[in-house]
Amino acid sequence: MRRIHVIGIGAGDPDQLTLQAVKAMRDTDVFFLLDKGEARSGLVGLRRDILDAHLPEGTYRLVEVRDPERDRAAGGTAYSPAVGDWRSARAGLYERVIAEELGADESGAFLVWGDPALYDSTLGILEEVLERGAVAFEYDVVPGVSSVSALAARHRTGLNRVARPVQITTGRRLAEGLPDGVDDVVVMLDAHRAYERYTDRQGEDIDIYWGAYIGTPDEILLSGPLAETAPRITEAREEARRRKGWIMDTYLLRRNPRD
Amino acid sequence: MRRIHVIGIGAGDPDQLTLQAVKAMRDTDVFFLLDKGEARSGLVGLRRDILDAHLPEGTYRLVEVRDPERDRAAGGTAYSPAVGDWRSARAGLYERVIAEELGADESGAFLVWGDPALYDSTLGILEEVLERGAVAFEYDVVPGVSSVSALAARHRTGLNRVARPVQITTGRRLAEGLPDGVDDVVVMLDAHRAYERYTDRQGEDIDIYWGAYIGTPDEILLSGPLAETAPRITEAREEARRRKGWIMDTYLLRRNPRD
Repeated sequence: MRRIHVIGIGAGDPDQLTLQAVKAMRDTDVFFLLDKGEARSGLVGLRRDILDAHLPEGTYRLVEVRDPERDRAAGGTAYSPAVGDWRSARAGLYERVIAEELGADESGAFLVWGDPALYDSTLGILEEVLERGAVAFEYDVVPGVSSVSALAARHRTGLNRVARPVQITTGRRLAEGLPDGVDDVVVMLDAHRAYERYTDRQGEDIDIYWGAYIGTPDEILLSGPLAETAPRITEAREEARRRKGWIMDTYLLRRNPRD
Repeated sequence: MRRIHVIGIGAGDPDQLTLQAVKAMRDTDVFFLLDKGEARSGLVGLRRDILDAHLPEGTYRLVEVRDPERDRAAGGTAYSPAVGDWRSARAGLYERVIAEELGADESGAFLVWGDPALYDSTLGILEEVLERGAVAFEYDVVPGVSSVSALAARHRTGLNRVARPVQITTGRRLAEGLPDGVDDVVVMLDAHRAYERYTDRQGEDIDIYWGAYIGTPDEILLSGPLAETAPRITEAREEARRRKGWIMDTYLLRRNPRD
């Protein structure tokens, strides 16, 4: 039976790999590396560095998979249909590379930034491949240090206040409003700077803890009261994106109780 | 200057340590192990096993700290004041052991289950110790695989659905109601089986993914529709708690869209 490991590799620092992830990598014959196009080739490079650091050369094969382009033109919050098409395209791609590149008794692996359970499509797509029924395999999941945990660690802050909840959401959702009933909100996948919408809330006291390329040599951290920190983040973010061609950032918004 | 590492050590599986955690442990002279009383001595034992597995004997010192009892009698959701007293008591304790047991140029460490940013008091207490001003130190945080990520990995499920939020909350909060605007809810610190309140919701279709002692040889996993799975969880949970004297469990509630 073919086996597949879905391995969380941490948020960017190669030392955020767990021992379990290293063991799973050593149990892998074929690594499937998803290439999201030239702009993000730095990410493929980082994954290769991780393999080089932990596995003897010649003990594994690398298969680069060119990611299908997602239709981002649809816009708005209702982007699930476009995502659905894109997932099916990717499921077809995964099905093909698993069938063609992975021998019947071999094990393959997908390396996922952060933790495979948070805003990553690999698990859903593998389930879709299994449902299609054309190729069979077993799979397991190796949890990783999420970019959320990495952000909090670098800012040396908790995600929640004592006995309070924390919500993890997307930039698109945040653009619709701060969620009800929760004062600590972690925002991922925010391409449109949704935090800027909350800089002039009367009577609200909001702090932001922001980080980009966390755990890598390019790491940038900014934090403070939202109103004065937001412009600095926007500037740092645009500058970094111009320089590197892509950005991987996340932030925590913390609504403080009114006095 | 004294230095302190707050090290996330993963959710129970010793292989969930990151390479960064191992490095920080090797840079540590004194480990402060919090003992929460006999019932939980298994947890202290697990931490000792982790030290034994990664550090040569004789290269570090162990200081066991007996945790101040928290006043749980207060009950209800407004348990912050009791928590406040308890935090101050613990801050006093930390202040004393850091001053007495850690040399001026040494580094100490606290090993935290899961990730130090989620429902753990260590960071808040160290800040309180610094504010008191009696002892000075630098500290850093090593993020860990949270029990939330470990739960999701063992169930091979994502925490959020595509483009949707996820909330992490406590049993006490859940007992007050399912949070608004979010259909994926991870519940921690639920001593009173708050999930049982949602087993007979008309027109609601809720799944539960539950796990205890995740990543350890005692691991128990149960999942399925809440109404039929809740009694099995309650039974497994009580049996395990009787047998081991303590339980460490968490779960994901997933509200499915109505057809």
